[in-house]
Amino acid sequence: MEKKAVVVLSGGLDSTTCMGIAKDAGYELYPLTFYYGQRHNREVEQAKKIADFYGVPAHRLVNLDFLGQIGGSALTDTNIEVPVVQANAADEEEIPATYVPARNMIFLSLAVAYAEVVGAEVIYIGVSAVDYSGYPDCRPEFIRSMNETVHLATKAGAKGTGIRIEAPLAHLSKKETIEWGLALGVPYELSTSCYQGGAEACGECDSCRLRLKGFAEAGVKDPISYQKG
Amino acid sequence: MEKKAVVVLSGGLDSTTCMGIAKDAGYELYPLTFYYGQRHNREVEQAKKIADFYGVPAHRLVNLDFLGQIGGSALTDTNIEVPVVQANAADEEEIPATYVPARNMIFLSLAVAYAEVVGAEVIYIGVSAVDYSGYPDCRPEFIRSMNETVHLATKAGAKGTGIRIEAPLAHLSKKETIEWGLALGVPYELSTSCYQGGAEACGECDSCRLRLKGFAEAGVKDPISYQKG
Repeated sequence: MEKKAVVVLSGGLDSTTCMGIAKDAGYELYPLTFYYGQRHNREVEQAKKIADFYGVPAHRLVNLDFLGQIGGSALTDTNIEVPVVQANAADEEEIPATYVPARNMIFLSLAVAYAEVVGAEVIYIGVSAVDYSGYPDCRPEFIRSMNETVHLATKAGAKGTGIRIEAPLAHLSKKETIEWGLALGVPYELSTSCYQGGAEACGECDSCRLRLKGFAEAGVKDPISYQKG
Repeated sequence: MEKKAVVVLSGGLDSTTCMGIAKDAGYELYPLTFYYGQRHNREVEQAKKIADFYGVPAHRLVNLDFLGQIGGSALTDTNIEVPVVQANAADEEEIPATYVPARNMIFLSLAVAYAEVVGAEVIYIGVSAVDYSGYPDCRPEFIRSMNETVHLATKAGAKGTGIRIEAPLAHLSKKETIEWGLALGVPYELSTSCYQGGAEACGECDSCRLRLKGFAEAGVKDPISYQKG
């Protein structure tokens, strides 16, 4: 039987790269995409195309409207404005308005339930603490602690078979991520990063800036369309 | 400003006791009830009545249909039969069919997001590893590890203000839980424990047996109705 991996797939550059990495590691892919009251649904639509590209046996969409209902983030609450420039917030030790409370802990908890049910041994998540926005739940120490908690929380852990969380991009810059992904044939033209979620990326939000910087440093043209440049 | 607590409220005996404990500790209560494809909705209805009893400012219901859709538990998957007798599964080091994959990790992750948004400093959850069904995510070591992960995952943790998870029943028998709850005036007549979810409790499932044993040991009559006895 083929070994299986659950992939947390947002449709962004990092999670799309994780699809390629998990595939390359010989896994059958079970992507999971969360629907959590983002201001736009473009991420979900692109995630579907990426799942199709990889010919996955199943692509699950998970309704987490609750996160939108409680608000608390510029990404889910229309009363909070998405900041135009906040890149390198990490340098300032400040957590930006686009932080969604406990997001990765929630995503990973649900991914663990799914992994137990389909019999996957690993969960891939595209977090990175390099060239990132300063979210606490993107740091390697969070992933390490989460792995311990997962081990204690699950039947698989109790039986010693275990489910582990892999964050292969944790220590990579965007440039390095993109170079790895291109070598694996990752379809970046299907990925979407812009917080504004238009058909063309804004090129100005934190997420666009980090992405553009990565492609520039890799010396490759970003295949998606931008409003400017 | 009154200090706030999120309470994971299933409508069962333990979580109802936690409402009383949190209230007694001086917290304004923000109960959270999860809707996750249980075979019956009685728990949710009773949880609403319990929230009303305590006059809470808000009672949030969280849709987690995903857990029902993926199945994997006798409580959410109609293809798996709820075992009639499985009490003391913990003694046999076996995890019962009623285990829901990663349930408490998922509930607590979402409770953390809610706590961050409403500004609660604590989350109460009624897990216990005494007189329990052998679920791995009811053990104190899971709660301890989850607290560390929460600290690393959140803005509150990063700022040092923190959100902590309290499991006040962790080391209590059902008898001790009931005695504490009765002293606090907890409305056990509104709570529901039976896995079958009928208007009258079956009195035979694992959950009913643990509950009846607790009331018997406390020397008090259980105020809810049973089909037998």
